[in-house]
Amino acid sequence: MEHYKIKVAYDGTRYDGWQKQGNTAATIQGKLEGVLSRLDEAPVEVRGAGRTDAGVHARGQVADFRLNQPLPPGQILDYLNRYLPDDIAVTACAPAGPRFHARLSALGKRYLYRLWTSPIPNVFQRRYLTPWTEEMDLDAMGRAAALLTGTHDFRSFCANRRFKKSSVRTLAALDIRRAGDEVQLIFEGDGFLYNMVRILTGTLVEVGMGQRQAEDMPAILAARDREAAGRTMPAQGLILDEVFYGPQGGF
Amino acid sequence: MEHYKIKVAYDGTRYDGWQKQGNTAATIQGKLEGVLSRLDEAPVEVRGAGRTDAGVHARGQVADFRLNQPLPPGQILDYLNRYLPDDIAVTACAPAGPRFHARLSALGKRYLYRLWTSPIPNVFQRRYLTPWTEEMDLDAMGRAAALLTGTHDFRSFCANRRFKKSSVRTLAALDIRRAGDEVQLIFEGDGFLYNMVRILTGTLVEVGMGQRQAEDMPAILAARDREAAGRTMPAQGLILDEVFYGPQGGF
Repeated sequence: MEHYKIKVAYDGTRYDGWQKQGNTAATIQGKLEGVLSRLDEAPVEVRGAGRTDAGVHARGQVADFRLNQPLPPGQILDYLNRYLPDDIAVTACAPAGPRFHARLSALGKRYLYRLWTSPIPNVFQRRYLTPWTEEMDLDAMGRAAALLTGTHDFRSFCANRRFKKSSVRTLAALDIRRAGDEVQLIFEGDGFLYNMVRILTGTLVEVGMGQRQAEDMPAILAARDREAAGRTMPAQGLILDEVFYGPQGGF
Repeated sequence: MEHYKIKVAYDGTRYDGWQKQGNTAATIQGKLEGVLSRLDEAPVEVRGAGRTDAGVHARGQVADFRLNQPLPPGQILDYLNRYLPDDIAVTACAPAGPRFHARLSALGKRYLYRLWTSPIPNVFQRRYLTPWTEEMDLDAMGRAAALLTGTHDFRSFCANRRFKKSSVRTLAALDIRRAGDEVQLIFEGDGFLYNMVRILTGTLVEVGMGQRQAEDMPAILAARDREAAGRTMPAQGLILDEVFYGPQGGF
């Protein structure tokens, strides 16, 4: 069996997320497996680094899979881009080391959440932005972000209330910047709980609107209770920007 | 009657072009008239500067219309953006002088044609790009472009073979530039014939691929025959970027 890794970009609008579920749902994993199984003339299983939810996009999702036939990576890349729908593209393909596992080998990820703050809609980027025209105090949001970075138990920011494993994660960076009419929140960390980026963004937006204080963040973390944090923001503004690996794992 | 002008951006993918035709087709003009007629509680006619074809986009289309009720332009803009579908946005609204006519008052227009030259699809911009992975000699295309600029009879570049009026137009500028994996052709002129930008682009692309010589351009112009020019490029890479007016007409 030959082992490969790919980098994948997708517009998640039309999909029920990354992960295959039953036979009916349209998922990114399902589309990739369909094309690769045709190429290899055998069922192929694709493992992704992050299970993005319905409507979430990716610029740098990473996945790995094994094929019976050894093929040049460039040929696999061309085949995938020829037969995948036009809202999914494979941007790189390379041989993977025998131990490589897209999810377990990942050291971290970067997510981007994009808010569109103008009352005039952005027609061309509309699928990748969440409209948010309420005034936001970015300084207050930055102070709150500083209190959220670092190693914490992020259980208050996890939508899965029955999550049994450790919910301690390291949020290495949380930057907030204005880019024209856009406000971007950039999250880098070693791992993210279910809906964590969307709940962090919702909580920060509430700080920006003055509905919460930056100084409330430690108490929200300490509560370890989803009720303590803010709203879950919509999927469409969220993009999995990059997955980080060690020197052996990158592209 | 109060007279207004608006600037309109749209993703033309879903539409049968700008111009209303019958009752069934989805057109940009039809959508605008629908919302404005509801606002004014009377039928409103919208006149556009350029009748973009099915699938063609606009960043800076301009249109004008009259309302029975005098309303602040900001209120018209908000109402339109609230009720228009999310692939059409009004980016500006202002009072128009009594003589203003979006099409007849226009001094010129700028169109952009975007080619995507990488074999790896651009997922996020795919609706606004025409994929073109064949090698192109941009220097040769630039030499051909120089021979096409100026005042000429552009009948060879007009898809309407029964066009009875003058087909002399001034192509003030035709720039070709590489921007990353994209090749952009930028056209500025006082007026454009039916499919003129798409046929000019097709002819230049054929020069780029070596199927025609730059030096053939004067003969193609002189032929005054659609058969003499190159292919018509697809609608999806074309965008009406801006419409130019005199000092009285702008926004």
